[in-house]
Order: sequence, then C-alpha cells, then structure tokens
Amino acid sequence: MPRLVVRNFSISLDGFGAGPGQGVDNPLGVRGLELHEWVFATRAWNELQGEAGGEEGLDDRFIRQGDERIGATIMGRNMFSPIRGPWLNEDWTGWWGENPPYHHPVFVLTHHRRTPIPMQGGTTFNFVTDGIEAALERAFEAAGGRDVRLGGGVSTIQQYMRAGLLDELSVAIVPVLLGGGERLFDRLDGRALGYECVELVSSGMAAHARLVRKN
Amino acid sequence: MPRLVVRNFSISLDGFGAGPGQGVDNPLGVRGLELHEWVFATRAWNELQGEAGGEEGLDDRFIRQGDERIGATIMGRNMFSPIRGPWLNEDWTGWWGENPPYHHPVFVLTHHRRTPIPMQGGTTFNFVTDGIEAALERAFEAAGGRDVRLGGGVSTIQQYMRAGLLDELSVAIVPVLLGGGERLFDRLDGRALGYECVELVSSGMAAHARLVRKN
Repeated sequence: MPRLVVRNFSISLDGFGAGPGQGVDNPLGVRGLELHEWVFATRAWNELQGEAGGEEGLDDRFIRQGDERIGATIMGRNMFSPIRGPWLNEDWTGWWGENPPYHHPVFVLTHHRRTPIPMQGGTTFNFVTDGIEAALERAFEAAGGRDVRLGGGVSTIQQYMRAGLLDELSVAIVPVLLGGGERLFDRLDGRALGYECVELVSSGMAAHARLVRKN
Repeated sequence: MPRLVVRNFSISLDGFGAGPGQGVDNPLGVRGLELHEWVFATRAWNELQGEAGGEEGLDDRFIRQGDERIGATIMGRNMFSPIRGPWLNEDWTGWWGENPPYHHPVFVLTHHRRTPIPMQGGTTFNFVTDGIEAALERAFEAAGGRDVRLGGGVSTIQQYMRAGLLDELSVAIVPVLLGGGERLFDRLDGRALGYECVELVSSGMAAHARLVRKN
C-alpha cells in the first residue's frame, strides 16, 4: 500500500520547524536556514545542485532515502510561496528556480485557484483548493503506486496527522535554538494519534527520529 | 570557577520534561517514567542500586559524568515532594528512600520553612525559602569549590536560565511522545539567553545535547 510520509523534516532543539517572521526575505523564518545546514553539508545535496563535494555518512544516507519510492509531493501554500491571499499574477513559481528538486508532480494546498505550472526536470506544481483529503487522493493517483511525500510546513503536517492520514514522520533534530517560530508539537498529541518512535540516531549535525503510526 | 550545571535532564521528543498530572501516584507525571528508561538500562544506575548488570557505552558514560565534580544539588520543591503548600508534618523525606543517591548537601527550593533532614550516605536535605540566588549561594558554599548540579524540574531550570545563573544544560532527548506535561522550552528563548549547543550524540535510547552559555 502506498503511504504518506514526511522525511527529514528539520526541527530545532527547542522544537521549531521554522523561525519567527517568515516572509520573502526569510522563507524559513529568521535563522530558519540554520535548520538545514546538515542537509547542505551532504554529498547528496551537492549532487542535486550539480556540484562535487559534500560529506557521506548518516546524513547523506537520510537525504538519499528521503527521495526513495516517492512519486508525488504535497506541500502547504507557505512552503511554496511567501504570497498570502489571492495570487496577484502568475509570476511566482516557487523558491527552487527553473528546475526544482522534485522531478514529479507536486500538489500545493491553497484556497486560491491557479493553473498548473510545468517546470523543467519533470516537476509540475498543481494547486489544490478542495482540501487535504482531495490533495492526497490526487497525489496518490499521480504517484502511480509509489509513496507520497509531505514536504511541510508545520501547519500542513499537523493537519494530516490530526486527520489520521500521515503514516510516517521522520524528523531531524538539529543542535540549534531558534527561540520562537512554528513549533511542530504545538498542541499536537502525537502519542494519542498513535505515533511511536522506532529509531533515533545522530550524526552530530542532526539527530534523526523516525515516528510511525501504529494504529 | 565552580559552575551551576544541569546534567542528563530527560525530555520527550515533543519536548516535555514531565508528563501531565504529576502527583503522589505519578511523581514524573503520567508515563513520565518512560523518560528515564535509558537511565535504568545503564550499568552505572544498577551500581547505584547495589545491583549487577546494565549496559555500558554512551548512556552509561553520561550517567557517570553526571556526578563528576559535583559538590551539591539544588532542586525544586516538586522534585522533592508531591506535597503542595505548607509541610503538614516531617514525614516526607523524598522519593529516594533512606539512602538517597546524592551523597552531598541538597537544597530544596520552597516557600515553607522546614528543618534540615540528614539522611544516610551523606545526603542532607536543606530547605531554602529566600529564593534561587540564596539557594545557589548556599550550594556553592557547601560544594567547597566543586560544581553545583541543578536537578530540576522544568520550572526551576527555567528560573535559573532566565536569571542568567545556569552555565550548562545537558538534555537527553528520548524517543517517546508524552503528548502533554511540562515543556522545557516553553516560552523560553534559550538562544536570546546566550545558550549554544556544542554536542549532539545518540545511543539509540537517548540523544544527548549539551548546551553551554556563551555570554
């Protein structure tokens, strides 16, 4: 059975998946980029950028496994764009340039209709206005038997967890304090929702915890 | 210079240092005992109980280092006792039996006076009613040049952090979800208070993060 999974979602030691004050200048919130330094250090990430170098080992393995058996991605509107409210025009096509690192259909949750955007390298951004379940249905269909990856952010992950639709959640706890921002486990009783941690390993740059839904 | 340090303070993946509903039946809150399974599994813990067995390795090393160079301990009232308000009598002498695992002077923060309790094995429980700074002063004096360990709980640690009095905080992030309880980083901006994480290692049963105050 294809599953819905979150992979390598970075949170700070104090629990935040994004820093305070998200916007165009700080898509991940103030100092939110520090959550992803462990990613940038890997060989897998460098390869994705067409560059040499980077470290192998645990973090590199997690980045590579993050894309395995994934046929489609779902993300929240704020992960796709700093724009709030209706789309003013068709200019914004994501944070990732002309060839985004997805290479498969991406479904963006939004309240505002927009025509799909085909990008280079196989990524198409589709906009879903009829809710998280409809998005999941479309993503599973597009994935053709493979898993669907839920990219984030915090609010989107929480919605899928509360709806009982998320099968697995891998978080990377990074050794920084953000002091504020969006907290992943904010008013979210993961235990009552059936999640258990089945793995906890650390590279020094990130402690990887894998949570699976047991019921 | 002697320092004030927190060592091996366990928090859940969702950030709680104690479960919900603390009381006589659940001194650590509901399911809070799960926070300490990594401790009970170590050889060092078994030795403290006068028993054989237990695992060596990373967690064992952290437990042993937790007591190194410590001359006194400070703890909050709720860590010493489930009783709230005035002491009704002198019966309660802590959770740890007649020979508590401290073996040095312990200073309990409380609003209610009580005479010191000498226990077996070198532990004396002293009750401090004039605030956290007075307790620290007395503890440093009692420690005779060694460090002072701050035991907990969450509220007490937060008070010392906010007052700029805590030099180091080692947390053990354990692979369980509690869903509620007392959150260590609740309205606590550790970054603004000057703390940085300088180490992150995992045994599989706990990821140990060491935070030191840099300014």
